[in-house]
Amino acid sequence: METLANSLNGLTVADGLLAVGKVLLQIAVILVIARLLLGIINRVIEHMLLRDDQHRPAVRDEQRAKTLASLLKSVSFYTVFFVAGMMVLESIGINTASLLAAAGVAGLAIGFGAQNLVKDVVSGFFILFEGQFRVGDYVGIGNVEGVVEQTGLRTTWIRSFGGEVHIIPNGEVRQVTNFMGHGMRAMFSVPIAFEEDVERAIAVLEEAFEKAREEGALENLVAGPKVLGVTNIGEAGVELSIWAQAEAMSQWALGRQLRKLVKETLDAHGIKLGYPRRHVMMHPMEPS
Amino acid sequence: METLANSLNGLTVADGLLAVGKVLLQIAVILVIARLLLGIINRVIEHMLLRDDQHRPAVRDEQRAKTLASLLKSVSFYTVFFVAGMMVLESIGINTASLLAAAGVAGLAIGFGAQNLVKDVVSGFFILFEGQFRVGDYVGIGNVEGVVEQTGLRTTWIRSFGGEVHIIPNGEVRQVTNFMGHGMRAMFSVPIAFEEDVERAIAVLEEAFEKAREEGALENLVAGPKVLGVTNIGEAGVELSIWAQAEAMSQWALGRQLRKLVKETLDAHGIKLGYPRRHVMMHPMEPS
Amino acid sequence: METLANSLNGLTVADGLLAVGKVLLQIAVILVIARLLLGIINRVIEHMLLRDDQHRPAVRDEQRAKTLASLLKSVSFYTVFFVAGMMVLESIGINTASLLAAAGVAGLAIGFGAQNLVKDVVSGFFILFEGQFRVGDYVGIGNVEGVVEQTGLRTTWIRSFGGEVHIIPNGEVRQVTNFMGHGMRAMFSVPIAFEEDVERAIAVLEEAFEKAREEGALENLVAGPKVLGVTNIGEAGVELSIWAQAEAMSQWALGRQLRKLVKETLDAHGIKLGYPRRHVMMHPMEPS
Amino acid sequence: METLANSLNGLTVADGLLAVGKVLLQIAVILVIARLLLGIINRVIEHMLLRDDQHRPAVRDEQRAKTLASLLKSVSFYTVFFVAGMMVLESIGINTASLLAAAGVAGLAIGFGAQNLVKDVVSGFFILFEGQFRVGDYVGIGNVEGVVEQTGLRTTWIRSFGGEVHIIPNGEVRQVTNFMGHGMRAMFSVPIAFEEDVERAIAVLEEAFEKAREEGALENLVAGPKVLGVTNIGEAGVELSIWAQAEAMSQWALGRQLRKLVKETLDAHGIKLGYPRRHVMMHPMEPS
Amino acid sequence: METLANSLNGLTVADGLLAVGKVLLQIAVILVIARLLLGIINRVIEHMLLRDDQHRPAVRDEQRAKTLASLLKSVSFYTVFFVAGMMVLESIGINTASLLAAAGVAGLAIGFGAQNLVKDVVSGFFILFEGQFRVGDYVGIGNVEGVVEQTGLRTTWIRSFGGEVHIIPNGEVRQVTNFMGHGMRAMFSVPIAFEEDVERAIAVLEEAFEKAREEGALENLVAGPKVLGVTNIGEAGVELSIWAQAEAMSQWALGRQLRKLVKETLDAHGIKLGYPRRHVMMHPMEPS
Amino acid sequence: METLANSLNGLTVADGLLAVGKVLLQIAVILVIARLLLGIINRVIEHMLLRDDQHRPAVRDEQRAKTLASLLKSVSFYTVFFVAGMMVLESIGINTASLLAAAGVAGLAIGFGAQNLVKDVVSGFFILFEGQFRVGDYVGIGNVEGVVEQTGLRTTWIRSFGGEVHIIPNGEVRQVTNFMGHGMRAMFSVPIAFEEDVERAIAVLEEAFEKAREEGALENLVAGPKVLGVTNIGEAGVELSIWAQAEAMSQWALGRQLRKLVKETLDAHGIKLGYPRRHVMMHPMEPS
Amino acid sequence: METLANSLNGLTVADGLLAVGKVLLQIAVILVIARLLLGIINRVIEHMLLRDDQHRPAVRDEQRAKTLASLLKSVSFYTVFFVAGMMVLESIGINTASLLAAAGVAGLAIGFGAQNLVKDVVSGFFILFEGQFRVGDYVGIGNVEGVVEQTGLRTTWIRSFGGEVHIIPNGEVRQVTNFMGHGMRAMFSVPIAFEEDVERAIAVLEEAFEKAREEGALENLVAGPKVLGVTNIGEAGVELSIWAQAEAMSQWALGRQLRKLVKETLDAHGIKLGYPRRHVMMHPMEPS
Repeated sequence: METLANSLNGLTVADGLLAVGKVLLQIAVILVIARLLLGIINRVIEHMLLRDDQHRPAVRDEQRAKTLASLLKSVSFYTVFFVAGMMVLESIGINTASLLAAAGVAGLAIGFGAQNLVKDVVSGFFILFEGQFRVGDYVGIGNVEGVVEQTGLRTTWIRSFGGEVHIIPNGEVRQVTNFMGHGMRAMFSVPIAFEEDVERAIAVLEEAFEKAREEGALENLVAGPKVLGVTNIGEAGVELSIWAQAEAMSQWALGRQLRKLVKETLDAHGIKLGYPRRHVMMHPMEPS
Repeated sequence: METLANSLNGLTVADGLLAVGKVLLQIAVILVIARLLLGIINRVIEHMLLRDDQHRPAVRDEQRAKTLASLLKSVSFYTVFFVAGMMVLESIGINTASLLAAAGVAGLAIGFGAQNLVKDVVSGFFILFEGQFRVGDYVGIGNVEGVVEQTGLRTTWIRSFGGEVHIIPNGEVRQVTNFMGHGMRAMFSVPIAFEEDVERAIAVLEEAFEKAREEGALENLVAGPKVLGVTNIGEAGVELSIWAQAEAMSQWALGRQLRKLVKETLDAHGIKLGYPRRHVMMHPMEPS
Repeated sequence: METLANSLNGLTVADGLLAVGKVLLQIAVILVIARLLLGIINRVIEHMLLRDDQHRPAVRDEQRAKTLASLLKSVSFYTVFFVAGMMVLESIGINTASLLAAAGVAGLAIGFGAQNLVKDVVSGFFILFEGQFRVGDYVGIGNVEGVVEQTGLRTTWIRSFGGEVHIIPNGEVRQVTNFMGHGMRAMFSVPIAFEEDVERAIAVLEEAFEKAREEGALENLVAGPKVLGVTNIGEAGVELSIWAQAEAMSQWALGRQLRKLVKETLDAHGIKLGYPRRHVMMHPMEPS
Repeated sequence: METLANSLNGLTVADGLLAVGKVLLQIAVILVIARLLLGIINRVIEHMLLRDDQHRPAVRDEQRAKTLASLLKSVSFYTVFFVAGMMVLESIGINTASLLAAAGVAGLAIGFGAQNLVKDVVSGFFILFEGQFRVGDYVGIGNVEGVVEQTGLRTTWIRSFGGEVHIIPNGEVRQVTNFMGHGMRAMFSVPIAFEEDVERAIAVLEEAFEKAREEGALENLVAGPKVLGVTNIGEAGVELSIWAQAEAMSQWALGRQLRKLVKETLDAHGIKLGYPRRHVMMHPMEPS
Repeated sequence: METLANSLNGLTVADGLLAVGKVLLQIAVILVIARLLLGIINRVIEHMLLRDDQHRPAVRDEQRAKTLASLLKSVSFYTVFFVAGMMVLESIGINTASLLAAAGVAGLAIGFGAQNLVKDVVSGFFILFEGQFRVGDYVGIGNVEGVVEQTGLRTTWIRSFGGEVHIIPNGEVRQVTNFMGHGMRAMFSVPIAFEEDVERAIAVLEEAFEKAREEGALENLVAGPKVLGVTNIGEAGVELSIWAQAEAMSQWALGRQLRKLVKETLDAHGIKLGYPRRHVMMHPMEPS
Repeated sequence: METLANSLNGLTVADGLLAVGKVLLQIAVILVIARLLLGIINRVIEHMLLRDDQHRPAVRDEQRAKTLASLLKSVSFYTVFFVAGMMVLESIGINTASLLAAAGVAGLAIGFGAQNLVKDVVSGFFILFEGQFRVGDYVGIGNVEGVVEQTGLRTTWIRSFGGEVHIIPNGEVRQVTNFMGHGMRAMFSVPIAFEEDVERAIAVLEEAFEKAREEGALENLVAGPKVLGVTNIGEAGVELSIWAQAEAMSQWALGRQLRKLVKETLDAHGIKLGYPRRHVMMHPMEPS
Repeated sequence: METLANSLNGLTVADGLLAVGKVLLQIAVILVIARLLLGIINRVIEHMLLRDDQHRPAVRDEQRAKTLASLLKSVSFYTVFFVAGMMVLESIGINTASLLAAAGVAGLAIGFGAQNLVKDVVSGFFILFEGQFRVGDYVGIGNVEGVVEQTGLRTTWIRSFGGEVHIIPNGEVRQVTNFMGHGMRAMFSVPIAFEEDVERAIAVLEEAFEKAREEGALENLVAGPKVLGVTNIGEAGVELSIWAQAEAMSQWALGRQLRKLVKETLDAHGIKLGYPRRHVMMHPMEPS
């Protein structure tokens, strides 16, 4: 403002024109630099999001990358031209201190009160960008498990088996568990009575598993089933662990099939299950 | 102030008029820009809130969108004219530093002490904007479940089945569980005694379910009921899991109906339930 | 200060008078604006707190609104005249930078150390303003339940049934549970022995409830009592859930009445309660 | 400094004297304002702390109020004269920027590292000011219960029944439970065997209570004792709840007296207590 | 710098001398004020730490007070002369802005990263200053109990009975429990069988306690032992609570002595202890 | 800007050229210093990451070090030239205050909202740099255990035995447990009946272990197995602890082999396992 | 810059030389002060770390002290010359504001995002400096126990008995438990049947302990073993506590030896262990 004032208070018209020219030159330089900067930013965004990505192509789809790219472009467009605009305003002599101070106070308020929002969006960006999960995946986040129904920049919507939808802000998503791997484990243990022959029980079960595998009775099987061995000797007998792998989302059904098979096999061979045991010292008392 | 002072200390009336003119010009430019900015902001708000929204039309109602829009418009109106006002004050030579410093200190105080309030309102805005739930929905927030009775910018009021109202600040609402889906699950498990034939028990139950379905005895049924299979082999027998889906809010009643049906069916076919088993080594002692 | 100094260093008395006049004018403008601002603020406060409020008139009483209004008016009075005062000081040439810097440091100290205090008052304001509870209400806050004895801007005093007073800072009050609704639930479940006929047990209980209702034996009853159905099949028999609603604060007494009624009814009809069951394999050992 | 320098570089002695006079005038104005401010603050403190307080006179004692008042006066005295001192220094041309910057850094360090200290003192002030408890009260703070032995601005010392002293910083005192009310509850429940007549058991107990009350056998009794009713039907019989109120600190002794009375009364009338029940299916095995 | 530059660019030697004189005067004033300030601070420290303290003389020893005083004096010496030094540098025309900015950034880094350190030292100072415990005291801090072995400004070293040393930063010490009181409680409860006469059991125990007291068989006894009364009526009989007080650190040994005495007394008088009771409905099954 | 303006408003062409020359000189100096600084930084990075590292060579591979080095070089390149660029802009008279203010607000926003991101990357850098684990290691982080599948700057991907992938932001990785040591423990305890001879049981087991070791029946054995001794005397007998060490990832299989071996050995020598013991006082009641 | 510009725009060569001389003088003064400051800091570091330390010499080794000293010296060297460099730059007229602003923003980013790193290093420094533990010590940190394998400025590596390495950032190390004391406790309790004579059981055990001590059968014994006394009277009998002290790391082996000794001694003298007791009221039912 002083520049303008001084030049207006100046002595000759030539001086005035010179001053105006200088100001126009400055504005032009600012705008050109802003334009160039934006061009560079846009190319970086495109490179980052739309390039051919060899090491994880299946998870990141074209559509999502374009959405992210256009979002990032808008954000940088507004940022660059906000700064350029303020520099122009200052060049023509309008004091932007109050504008900036207000922005600073607002920034503080955002920083404290709305940090959850910023956190949500930043986390959401990385969830999408890194392809941690896709719509339709069965995932576990915090104490919630279910099928991803919708992924957004701020929230993720997960429908669990109970039918309810869990709406989780992305900032709360610190650890994701993705259950869509190739071989998902179905594993449980069965207690065998102490008197039974462990070797025989294992042999009998392995035989039944072999037969079921040959008959194709177990759906979506990837590996196993087999008896891992003795995983505990406790009050209730000798625990045998049964292990198998299934296609994603079939592990629960496979587990139920295997439990039934194990029960029937042990019954058929007369091998008894183990229940807790106890010694009791009995002191008969007079009737009360 | 210096501008004004200099011009008043100036030499000629012409210079004074020139200075006053410059000031008036500046004020005019500021006000015009503020007005234009407000126009743009308002149009963005309307576009964001009142546009035709295809992917979630049922949850967001017209009324709420209008409320949000008018609220946002008020906030931006006061913000823009506060900044413009300060720029005008500065133009006519009144130092606004003290005003801004006071605002800064206040901003700090808000930032620290009242961040809960800002957090509540920001969260509340997004709950309304994203339509996470509506008045009348049965939802779960934190350790509270119940029917939403009132949704505001700062708090959400939920009435649980016990009759009490839970008033939850929106900033505490980090994860929402919405129970208003189409098929809500009713699921429980029944232990069958080890001696019973698992195949027969499943067949008998499926037959009873089929009959109940045909007779329409189960209200608000969406899918099932069916026996999922053997989900546990434990101390208390073989656990069978029963699964069904009901309309929202009917899952509890359906669960009670199914439990009674299962009990009656098993009784009718003489299939015994399983209770925990134990081996006891009995050592008789002399009477004491 | 420079203004004053310059004018005092000035050349003629006329210039001095002119400068003094300008300063007086500035002070006048500042004071007038401050006064107007205060008037607007006061009217907003009154509108917000004392207007006729249709949607929740019962909870907010006249007395409290007036207290809040006068408090808010004091706060804004001191704030506005603090800022105006500093602007006046600056106009007459006293540098207020040190004052403001001290205020800034103090603001920081408050921001960090005393944020609990600010948080308490802000929360307290909203508890009163939104009418979340009134003196005499039975509420639950955190792990405390009791009758509200006193509500203040900083603390809430709750007397629980044990007779002790819990003094809770309002900043700790994040989720309020208000038990003063119309129909408060009294609900419990009774285990029936497996051998009993579930249909008959339900019929017998419903009959007894009907009779008690007709005789008006149940005080403060709002709805029910009725048998909801079978809510669990467990080790200890078939669980029936009994449900009723009472006037606020009567739900506990009603629950006790109903439990006694259920016990007497089942006894009268010879329906046995269920206790846990267990299979024991008895291995006699030689006396030790 | 510039003012002073300019005046010293000035042309005539008269100008110098004028400048010195102006500086002295400024200092005088600053000191007068500081004095007046202090007077006002002191009067506010006295009004706040020493006024006749109708609604809670018993808890706040004269002595404590005077301590708080003198403390607050010291704090405001140092604050006001620190600010005034810096303004004087600046008036005579010494730059206080470095002083203030150092104070700012120190303020930051305090803000972060020593916030616990500030928090403790602020909380302590309000505990004393609001009279949440007095020396000798039996209170509960966090997971500690005991008699308050000493209250300070930074810590509260509580001696629990075990004899140990708990030293709690006031900033940790978020929720206080004060057990010094008039009628403190003594309550417990007794299980009655299923076979017993509930009506008779209640009548017998009420009769015994009546007698004990008449004989004055129960010390410090405020209300009750009476049988509230059936509060649970469980595995171990029908639970009756006994309720009474005692003078503060006598509730535990009263509870012990009542338990003994209940035991003796039930014994005298041959009413059996309830123990858990269980069905056992006994499978005899061959001796092992 | 401007002052110096202006004076060097000045017109006459006299003016130069005058300017240099002014600067020297300023430095002198700064140093004198710093010295005076330091004197005042030192006297305050001595008054605070070394004065005769009536209300807690035993805990605070001379040695520790002197250590604290010399520490505080060093800290204030460096602080005051750092500020004075910078003011002198500025007076002779060297810009200290960069120094202060660097200090500010460092202060920020300290504020965030090293706040634990500052917190530890501040807490440590108050632990020493308030005399919360001494070396050799048996204290409880957080989940640790033991004898204080070493107290420092940053950490406290506690050796627990197991022999291990716990090194706790003072910032983690929020609540201290000091077990060095005069009468430390030894308390436990004994279940008496339902059939026993409660009056007689109490009388027998009191008699045994009386005898043990007279014989001086209980070491370090302060008060008791006595039977408090019936503190519970449960599944396992009537619980009697025994209470006594011992010298600090002797309460555990006293508890062991009393338990043995109670056991022997009850045995000698044939009063049976109570064990849990249970009703069992026995259903004989055919041998399996 | 003032420099430039003043020189343009200057008197002669020579002066103008002089001013332009000065500006060019400044720019040159800035760029040269920036270049030198960058060279130094690059050499430090290379030294830090690519030097021969004696004390942990196996964990840090060449490839990863190069990736980290190029990343660090890019970051420092952009930082140095951003600062240099702004200094150049300022030299030629363009005010960079608004640019910096915007950067400051953005920095604040990042500081608060995106601190998780910065924290993740900083932690990730140190995980890679310190070689805490490698792809293929079996590690435990928080409540997750599994094989590391992918390590990045922001997240670590761990596949647990169940087949699911856990995606953990590096900022959540506070404590890493690496299970890839040489001798991983397989340890469990077996309860022996009270009547058995402890010496004999230990001897028998040690003999069986010796034999298995000689036959090479235990795969991947590193040390042991041996009987540690009696680790508990409880309700269920005397507990013997068995201890062995295996190659990493083989400890679970070894544990299962040993459990089976222990069971068979005890059976072969007729040593009975211990089950919980209980005394029962039997009161016969009349049939109900 | 103004200084330089003014001098170049000045009138005579003499003035120019004078100005250049002044600048050179300032630079010299700055560098000399920086050098002196560094000398003082280095001497303080050496004094702090390398002095003869009487009260804890064994834990702090020469090697570590030298490492810490050289690290601290580097840090202070870079800090002092960074500040001095910026003061020199400013003296020769280059504006360092942008440099400092960038540093400030970076400091903020570090402050928020990387505070964990700073916290780790500060904590690590004090762990090394105070000698809280050494490589080879058996320590407990948080929920981890094991032998310290490596201590660094950022992390501590602990190998637990299971063979796995726990890598803990030093910032997470808030409370350290060091198990390397002279007499580590081995303590356990044994339940004796109610019928046994407590006096005799204690005498028999003390005799066996005496004998084992005389025979030197207990390795690494420091104190004890002895029977502390009766520490509980419970459902399962009278609990006797056995106590002993061993050399560090031998307490577990000693505990196992003592348990075996106690078992054998009680068996040899026919003193029965206690098991839980229970009264059962037996109601025979008709066979089902």
